[in-house]
Amino acid sequence: MTLQQLQSTYEQAKAKKLALDMSRGKPESAQLDLSNDLFDPKWVTPPTAESGLDCRNYGVLDGIPECKRLFSELMGVPAEQLIVCGNASLNVMYDYLTQMMPHWYFQDDGKIKFLCPVPGYDRHFGMLAQLGIEMINVPMLADGPDMAMMAELVKDPAVKGAICVPKYSNPEGKTFSDNVVRAFAALQPACPNFRVIWDNAYLVHDLYDESDALLNVHEAAKEFGSEDFFIEVCSFSKITFPGASVSCVAASPANIAAIKARMNVQTIGHDKLNQLRHARYFKDLAGIKAHMRKHAELIRPKFEAVLDILARDLTGIATWTVPRGGYFISLDLPEGTAKRTAQLLKEAGVTLTPAGATFPHGQDPHDRNLRIAPTFPPMEELIVATELLTVCARLAIAEK
Amino acid sequence: MTLQQLQSTYEQAKAKKLALDMSRGKPESAQLDLSNDLFDPKWVTPPTAESGLDCRNYGVLDGIPECKRLFSELMGVPAEQLIVCGNASLNVMYDYLTQMMPHWYFQDDGKIKFLCPVPGYDRHFGMLAQLGIEMINVPMLADGPDMAMMAELVKDPAVKGAICVPKYSNPEGKTFSDNVVRAFAALQPACPNFRVIWDNAYLVHDLYDESDALLNVHEAAKEFGSEDFFIEVCSFSKITFPGASVSCVAASPANIAAIKARMNVQTIGHDKLNQLRHARYFKDLAGIKAHMRKHAELIRPKFEAVLDILARDLTGIATWTVPRGGYFISLDLPEGTAKRTAQLLKEAGVTLTPAGATFPHGQDPHDRNLRIAPTFPPMEELIVATELLTVCARLAIAEK
Repeated sequence: MTLQQLQSTYEQAKAKKLALDMSRGKPESAQLDLSNDLFDPKWVTPPTAESGLDCRNYGVLDGIPECKRLFSELMGVPAEQLIVCGNASLNVMYDYLTQMMPHWYFQDDGKIKFLCPVPGYDRHFGMLAQLGIEMINVPMLADGPDMAMMAELVKDPAVKGAICVPKYSNPEGKTFSDNVVRAFAALQPACPNFRVIWDNAYLVHDLYDESDALLNVHEAAKEFGSEDFFIEVCSFSKITFPGASVSCVAASPANIAAIKARMNVQTIGHDKLNQLRHARYFKDLAGIKAHMRKHAELIRPKFEAVLDILARDLTGIATWTVPRGGYFISLDLPEGTAKRTAQLLKEAGVTLTPAGATFPHGQDPHDRNLRIAPTFPPMEELIVATELLTVCARLAIAEK
Repeated sequence: MTLQQLQSTYEQAKAKKLALDMSRGKPESAQLDLSNDLFDPKWVTPPTAESGLDCRNYGVLDGIPECKRLFSELMGVPAEQLIVCGNASLNVMYDYLTQMMPHWYFQDDGKIKFLCPVPGYDRHFGMLAQLGIEMINVPMLADGPDMAMMAELVKDPAVKGAICVPKYSNPEGKTFSDNVVRAFAALQPACPNFRVIWDNAYLVHDLYDESDALLNVHEAAKEFGSEDFFIEVCSFSKITFPGASVSCVAASPANIAAIKARMNVQTIGHDKLNQLRHARYFKDLAGIKAHMRKHAELIRPKFEAVLDILARDLTGIATWTVPRGGYFISLDLPEGTAKRTAQLLKEAGVTLTPAGATFPHGQDPHDRNLRIAPTFPPMEELIVATELLTVCARLAIAEK
């Protein structure tokens, strides 16, 4: 299209007064419907866990046995090394950070730095910013973060940890290679209680039958004696209901003991009926995987529709990732055009995750990255929004 | 009974190798059955809140409108001044304390003191101890804590707050009088961000048709401009299921704004399907009260059975409270005999809340208070356990 054609297409779209939302990685309604059978009372009847515990009553801090077993199989971690938690794994990460903050604070005159692979997850950066933690950008390479750079940076004792999404990363959909996972395990941080928040949010969220393989970080750590580095979390948020989920944290025996010691005074415990519901509904990992294939059937066409439009309109102009799982497509435009693209798009009624959000403090140093979340809008709206996105991108590039 | 009779009764009981538990304020199974209808899928069908929000999906941090309205009526606080939270109100209190800790810490060289009406709730003291907060005992009088003493103590700027159960207090079952509530509101603390954790755990937990009246502390505070002092929490734990409940925090607009600002990065949100379930099931305060009358019918006979045995066996020897609600009876034995009584009881197979637990650090300065939790054991066991308790108390007194 010529510039004139782009402009006229844009003006026509604007006149339609659209109100489309591609901002968050939200499941669409049809995905939620896949789990409606969870409402059946049979899953909580009788409400008694395998251990004999009445899940309606008080008791048990770390999760009921059948739910621990399910997470154990899902995460590949012994049941003794995990704690089943409440609705949001974000809350589990935040809690863990607040547990560590006083320890870290008194080590180096209050200096606390975290390594942040970028582009990354905006809510991770939001947590760290609010806790006053200084964030250091580490670029994502083809198979994960720049581990040579990380190995250097951890020599600073003020670097207390890192945070990342190792599989189908947010927003790029990349899965860390075995070498990258091993390089994490091999880090030699100066900080004595260095921690990596290993946010395994998309561990079974495949778009295709064949899943990306992620090396088990707890196993890799055994080789290097670095088991205590890793705090892994995941949840059923994008498996069943983001609004009523069950989450989990897995870590070394020492870390689990520390979390439990705090939990013991922190809470009476998490929702056990929802644990029972999920454990009985899925039974095992095969049950989860069968369920995830239904999700994939619903959202794969959406990812492919977006990718087709990007290929048609932006080849040679921009680059983007082609994820095989997760919830996002990461689009890199020419330097200095992402913000303007998002602004044009917004003025035409399409909301994206704000340009820059995939970097700490919302500061994309190259102003080029946009995160596309294809799952929530209906297909027709998604196509309209994505086509408009490429129009806006080309206009922004032309302006520059 | 003569000492010899007491001893022989005790030995006979011991020979039975009982295993009875009166340690925690747990509902009995029949109480939980009262809420089994919550399992009906109709409460979450359709899963759409009044606002149009799909409760299965992401969205809304402070609670769905119908659940906020229910808590608003229950707590007598405008819906804008409350946040609906997850399973455990204890977690809400802990979270709030951790939110305030850094602010308090940097005020007075790390000195943080809290005023603790005693006897009180062991889990409150556990939280404060773990956070490194120094606890100051304030005796409970007939109608609430010694407020003259509190008024003096808050002149110390290191006194950052207080924690209490204002209605059917744990363990005494006392309800603070209007004068006591007003005296809380009238406090003039030196600490600029003084907070009272107002744990209204038993606000509708009446044993009799007529409820103790508790003055609304937020209303009382308006008179003194002390609205920011009060952080009130409550939950459905002992209304529906302790294992799958919904809790709530109510506070001044400024405090709610501060909590929300933190929540915004802390979590994706709490379980909204359970909110919807509870809101639709109860509809309004009248629905909750009707439900609570069924609880009362089940547990009132247990309270009365315990009180009858205490009156029969310990009149003139010990004193105890006669609560009109809540979950506990507080027994005061002669000085220096509570620990020994609990020990004798334990050796005979009856578990009580440990003697001393109703005081900070488990230290009852007079070693006289025992907390009796009558709700969980079946009636026959409760009678056996209470009769044995009075035998042990009389033995312990005789030993002394």
